[in-house]
Amino acid sequence: MRPQDLIRIKRDGGALNAEQIRAFVRGVTSGEIPDYQTSALLMAIFLRGMNRDETVALTRSMIESGSRADLSSIPGLKVDKHSTGGVGDKTSIPLAALVAACGVSVPMISGRGLGHTGGTLDKLESIKGFRTNLPIPEFVDTVRKVGACLIGQTADLAPADKKLYALRDVTATVECPPLIASSILSKKAAEGIDALVMDVKTGSGSFLKGLERCRELARTIVEVGTGLGLRVVAFLTDMDQPLGRAVGNALEIEESIECLKGKGPSDLETLVVEMAAEMLVLAGTAKLIDPARERIRFAIRDGTGLKKLREIVVAQGGNGKVVEEPSRLPQAERSTPFPSPSSGFVTAMDAEAVGLAAMALGAGRRTVEDRIDPAAGILLRKKLGDRVEKGEPLLELRHAEATPLEEARAFLSRAYRFGSAPPPGRPVVLGRILG
Amino acid sequence: MRPQDLIRIKRDGGALNAEQIRAFVRGVTSGEIPDYQTSALLMAIFLRGMNRDETVALTRSMIESGSRADLSSIPGLKVDKHSTGGVGDKTSIPLAALVAACGVSVPMISGRGLGHTGGTLDKLESIKGFRTNLPIPEFVDTVRKVGACLIGQTADLAPADKKLYALRDVTATVECPPLIASSILSKKAAEGIDALVMDVKTGSGSFLKGLERCRELARTIVEVGTGLGLRVVAFLTDMDQPLGRAVGNALEIEESIECLKGKGPSDLETLVVEMAAEMLVLAGTAKLIDPARERIRFAIRDGTGLKKLREIVVAQGGNGKVVEEPSRLPQAERSTPFPSPSSGFVTAMDAEAVGLAAMALGAGRRTVEDRIDPAAGILLRKKLGDRVEKGEPLLELRHAEATPLEEARAFLSRAYRFGSAPPPGRPVVLGRILG
Repeated sequence: MRPQDLIRIKRDGGALNAEQIRAFVRGVTSGEIPDYQTSALLMAIFLRGMNRDETVALTRSMIESGSRADLSSIPGLKVDKHSTGGVGDKTSIPLAALVAACGVSVPMISGRGLGHTGGTLDKLESIKGFRTNLPIPEFVDTVRKVGACLIGQTADLAPADKKLYALRDVTATVECPPLIASSILSKKAAEGIDALVMDVKTGSGSFLKGLERCRELARTIVEVGTGLGLRVVAFLTDMDQPLGRAVGNALEIEESIECLKGKGPSDLETLVVEMAAEMLVLAGTAKLIDPARERIRFAIRDGTGLKKLREIVVAQGGNGKVVEEPSRLPQAERSTPFPSPSSGFVTAMDAEAVGLAAMALGAGRRTVEDRIDPAAGILLRKKLGDRVEKGEPLLELRHAEATPLEEARAFLSRAYRFGSAPPPGRPVVLGRILG
Repeated sequence: MRPQDLIRIKRDGGALNAEQIRAFVRGVTSGEIPDYQTSALLMAIFLRGMNRDETVALTRSMIESGSRADLSSIPGLKVDKHSTGGVGDKTSIPLAALVAACGVSVPMISGRGLGHTGGTLDKLESIKGFRTNLPIPEFVDTVRKVGACLIGQTADLAPADKKLYALRDVTATVECPPLIASSILSKKAAEGIDALVMDVKTGSGSFLKGLERCRELARTIVEVGTGLGLRVVAFLTDMDQPLGRAVGNALEIEESIECLKGKGPSDLETLVVEMAAEMLVLAGTAKLIDPARERIRFAIRDGTGLKKLREIVVAQGGNGKVVEEPSRLPQAERSTPFPSPSSGFVTAMDAEAVGLAAMALGAGRRTVEDRIDPAAGILLRKKLGDRVEKGEPLLELRHAEATPLEEARAFLSRAYRFGSAPPPGRPVVLGRILG
């Protein structure tokens, strides 16, 4: 069958079988199928959808396009966590340390920030010496010895995903549940894990907008992950405001350390505890969620989580002293307050605008080639429900002396809304979808 | 705006404005917009549609992508006819001669056959010496002197269409009314015409299947053509069986000559008279359709149509003697009857299968590089409603001695259905859509 015949089937709303999908992914990976046919199929998939079997087949084919990390030499079930991305979302860092401190192996392949969302790798690289480009054997070795390792995607894991993602980015076919699910799950399955906790962000700062579409994505990931033989639980979590108070790479490492000391913002701590506990249950080291939460909270209280973070940092070549002395992290030259234009309660936030403002300060990338300023970012002094007086600082901008502030200020000027009463409270965890 | 932002608008069901469409077509023509973005937009257009204003803007931008033939030195309104393509559809040839014989200029840019449908250029080139690649100045000159000229698309007329069509062909985005309309109308408007009669074929041999989609295409062409300032009338005509009795290039030239002598098959003559008369009305040389029909029929009876065909052939470098002696046309080495497998009335025909059988005999191209055998083809001895006895010839295959017949026979074995009673009669002209 020619590629255009497969495109036609999907275009007309039909389902592709596993053999057809495999042939397509092989052609994409080898370069035999030109990009213009691939992008036409991606748009047809975007608009016509894919059922569970198609998405499982797509994911399997993407896994088969490269090699797989072999973690079988490490005892126990290996559990990872992945997020669709948000603003101020540093969850992975305290969570990996806590879960590993509780004896569960966490092999984690993370991403970089692009656009308004940050990336775990960029945050970790604000620690001097921290290497995120370990080759797979060293990655496996670190997981075995330390219990956790956080690296970037390597060229040999799911190369089809790399090709498809690059095309999706420039053809407006990113925000599509089956394509997102296959992209995430192909990388995750290729890293050799047994179970996954998925954090689907929803709100003004999530890249996929609309609660229903986010719920659909969460369901798709659970169904397809289960179809691949993984244990998967998805959380639907709030991103109507940044998570915690720090947005920016070194600032978020500092906040992660605070969280591991039990002094972090409550929304961050809640999310870390909920998802870390779920990971213990998925790994089978806890039977029920309540005792699992207790174990995670204990690892915060007794400092074993923080100690584990230090071990991870050192194992990956970073300066372990930052864990005790976060002031060793890169520090911005300037701190500029952003005063509130009104008095009242913060009734709504545009988390995306905050993320874009941080990017404009140098904390993120506009294009993949951009360099990041690890010290740049934003500290939130006021969040949803907080009372503020006109002129009082809403946020604090951290930046280099030479950085122009106009663009960040423009984004921030539309990031807050005020009212005469606080908005109704909203929990961090909005839903939990089991396989 | 980046191309992906335009794609996103269309993907989400929005309408693009004229400026956005112009930017896109310019980028496609210049090569600045890569094919993978173009094909994603084409698929989004296929599945989301385009409204009248968008399609007018698209067509205008495609016209602006190249040069336009200037026919203003020729007095009177210039009228062309175009068909979506069918099997045995040689209408353009007698029609151009008859309309020109009645004093109306017919500048006609035609196509080649591909797949199961034939092309006017291939048919004309079966006349020894006939040139279809005249440069535009010679084309204009011939229209002025002879009243009609039939050539192929030149590289400088609507080059954007050439690029878009090539991509549509390999990305399953061909059968889309706004894209078809803009492709046809951009070429037609660029050739400098004032009015157009459009023949939208519908039935088993048409490339767009389904009466409703064909009607939608006819309406779109009339609306968009009118929006471009052209006078346009569209006919919806029957293609549930081949038109006339001849399928194949030289065979169709011979049948065209028969038609101009008043001895052609009645379905062909009816269609030629109806559309030629409409062209006289559009050109303003006839006020009403009835007297226009009479003038066309008179040009058949008095032989001026046939004389005009000879003039056209000679003006374009062809051997004019074929008009008096069609036996000078290429003749196939062999004539092989295809016997009826059943007795009964012909109740249904698969015209596409007949076209594919003719292609298999050498009358058409599988790929654009294929060479054609001008003498090859099929003569239909039985058509819808005819009574046939088992073993009696249904068709006659004309072919070179070396041509294998298996593939053609396989197509033909499913081309006819038989029953105990003739099917209800169906007119050739199924509908007429005015601007």
